[in-house]
This record gives sequence, structure tokens and C-alpha cells, in this order.
Amino acid sequence: MIVACLDPRCDPTKFFNLDGYEAIVHRNAGGNIRHALRDILMLDRAFDLNEVAVVHHTDCGTLTSTDEQIRTHIKARVDKAHWAEVDAIEFGSMVDVEESVKTDVEWFRTNPLVREELKQGCQGFVLDTQAGKVQRVDVD
Amino acid sequence: MIVACLDPRCDPTKFFNLDGYEAIVHRNAGGNIRHALRDILMLDRAFDLNEVAVVHHTDCGTLTSTDEQIRTHIKARVDKAHWAEVDAIEFGSMVDVEESVKTDVEWFRTNPLVREELKQGCQGFVLDTQAGKVQRVDVD
Ligand SMILES: [Zn+2]
Ligand SMILES: [Zn+2]
Repeated sequence: MIVACLDPRCDPTKFFNLDGYEAIVHRNAGGNIRHALRDILMLDRAFDLNEVAVVHHTDCGTLTSTDEQIRTHIKARVDKAHWAEVDAIEFGSMVDVEESVKTDVEWFRTNPLVREELKQGCQGFVLDTQAGKVQRVDVD
Repeated sequence: MIVACLDPRCDPTKFFNLDGYEAIVHRNAGGNIRHALRDILMLDRAFDLNEVAVVHHTDCGTLTSTDEQIRTHIKARVDKAHWAEVDAIEFGSMVDVEESVKTDVEWFRTNPLVREELKQGCQGFVLDTQAGKVQRVDVD
């Protein structure tokens, strides 16, 4: 299973040379693994996954603002009664792509809900959107 | 923006005839809009979205089990200390595809965090994976 950003330039079938039917691809803003946990658990139950690849990319929109900036923007048009709901959302803005891949892989490998064997099958990658090339990130 | 299932048969660039660069596509298990809210809010802030299309499909894996079955399965291999975390995950299993599309659209249109104009731009669809055809679902 692959977790990648929903940015149209980050289609894993392209940079991993898949035909679109070989892997299950979850796509969210940034390719944040926390927000893919529900899917990973569901699919692992159904298919006994072997691998989870987390792919973040250069030029990602999530690098351009902080969670606080996003929250402030949303709160400006939302009734105060719902601000706690805004605060509860982890937008997962990034500061550094490689660092965020490492953090995601480490988070996954230490997550108590994930099956032990699958933790070992988790790898991180950075896609260089300019070069169109993906590189493995060494974790620990 | 399109929210669709990560099932490889549900690639919106195919059934909506997009070239892959015209729309932002979030993909999660089932195409559940609740789990796409973070992305929608982030992207609406960045791009002022006009439309959100929610697409669920026939034969979806999320139709084959209940949230309780998934939780029971995961709890069987997870330490009791973390069961509350398992219970906190809304897996969003479906019973009926058309009904789940309606529920998702209604949930979105009444969500206090969503911009009013964008609520109006939310539409639901069912993809028939056998026929490869997508049909709009009337909501109210
Ligand atoms: Zn991105
Ligand atoms: Zn599905």
C-alpha cells in the first residue's frame, strides 16, 4: 500500500511505474500517514498487507503554511462555538520534506495499533517533483 | 475536488474523463468524506474550491463488514491499553452505496466548518464498477 500526496504530480503509478492495479494508493494532502491509519488498518485486515510506502514530495502545498495559520484562517469564518473542532484537526503542515517522511515512518513503526510485521514493512520516500524521481529515505 | 475510494477500479481520471491534472483527488477507503474534511479545508483555503464531488462505488470493500467487526479484529492483537484508540476510529463501513453517498453529502452540507458557498458545490455520485459508469445521486 502506498500513501502519497493528492497533488496531481504525485501519482505513484507514474513514479513507481505501476500500472494502477498493482498497489492500493491512499492519497491525502501531504501524504500524511496519520490520516491514512484508518485505511491501513482496514486494508490490512482485508488483505494482510506486506508493505506501506509513505511518499512526500518537494514543493508540497503543506510546506507553505503552518497548522496555526490554517486554523486562524478557518476560524475567521466559523462560529466560535466550533473553534474547538478546528483546533482538533491535525493539518500536518510540514517544514522539511525528508524530516516529515522520517517522522511519519517512525510514528507508524511505533504505533500500537499497527501489526508488528507491517511496521517492519514501512518505508519512506521523497519524490522530487522537478526531476520526477523518487528516493528512499533512511530511517534510523 | 473529488473524494473517491482508493479501490484501483475507482480512478476518477477514468470515469470522469480527466487527464489527471484537472482536479485534485483525495482517495481513502470508501471515499468517505469525513476522512477528507482536513484535506478539503486545507485546499479550500489555498485554492477557493468550487466543487466537491463524493464518489462511492458498488462492490466496495467497506460494504463487506461492520465497524464493530473491524474493531474486534484489531483488538484481538492489540494491548487492552489501546482499545480506546481503536474505538475512536470511525471506519465508516457502508450498508448501501447510494445511502452512504447521501449521508456523506448531507453531513458535508451541514458541517459548520465548511464554507457556505462550498456546501452548495457538493454533489454525490455512485460508480457502478461493473459498467464503469458514474451516476449522480439526488440529495433531498
Ligand atoms: Zn503535496
Ligand atoms: Zn471501495
